[in-house]
Amino acid sequence: MPPGGFNFSVLARPEVPERTLRAGEVIFREGEPAAEMFLIKSGTVAIRSDDHLIAELGDNEVFGEMALIDRSPRSATALAVTDVTLIPVSEKQFLFLVAETPFFALTIMRVLVHRLRLLNRVG
Amino acid sequence: MPPGGFNFSVLARPEVPERTLRAGEVIFREGEPAAEMFLIKSGTVAIRSDDHLIAELGDNEVFGEMALIDRSPRSATALAVTDVTLIPVSEKQFLFLVAETPFFALTIMRVLVHRLRLLNRVG
Repeated sequence: MPPGGFNFSVLARPEVPERTLRAGEVIFREGEPAAEMFLIKSGTVAIRSDDHLIAELGDNEVFGEMALIDRSPRSATALAVTDVTLIPVSEKQFLFLVAETPFFALTIMRVLVHRLRLLNRVG
Repeated sequence: MPPGGFNFSVLARPEVPERTLRAGEVIFREGEPAAEMFLIKSGTVAIRSDDHLIAELGDNEVFGEMALIDRSPRSATALAVTDVTLIPVSEKQFLFLVAETPFFALTIMRVLVHRLRLLNRVG
């Protein structure tokens, strides 16, 4: 997905503290319970499963949303490839945005469909 | 996805005319422009791409939602495997439901995540 391909400006709010990580740090691990998703404010994040690279994501992309949607454990591990700044989105905030901001719900759906189309093309 | 695994009762409304097809009939073809998604009221539908079976879907499952979400042409062909009864959902109704019924938006997201998890497992 191209950086900036989706508009997640609704997630960047002054009252949400950013989280910074150094290159090489683990953001979350496959199998862990999940309570939040993330918007990448800056930097590169790798999504890996069983030492297989699923995706590299950059500025203005989201990750970790699948576990919030179906309340399953993390299906993959997320690693900071460069120093990164993330905006965390709690499950509560996620559900609030889905309910109050249809554009946000549609944008999350578009991200999921984009990923499905990529996987279908490879498969 | 197990039949009945998702609750799409919000789509079954008396004012929406059902559509019936005979076994073997094409519901839509890969590459066609898209204006609606479908809930399967009864019967079995095959989703195929390039003569490759992507999924077989049954009662209370939806299909055709990807093209509504990202406004792309159909990414696959849908065929009636048995006689089927479908409830069509227009783009307008889909967007209305996303805006007015957060539970519907979340259920569509869950369907997409379910499909992503299946594809990731195979890949």
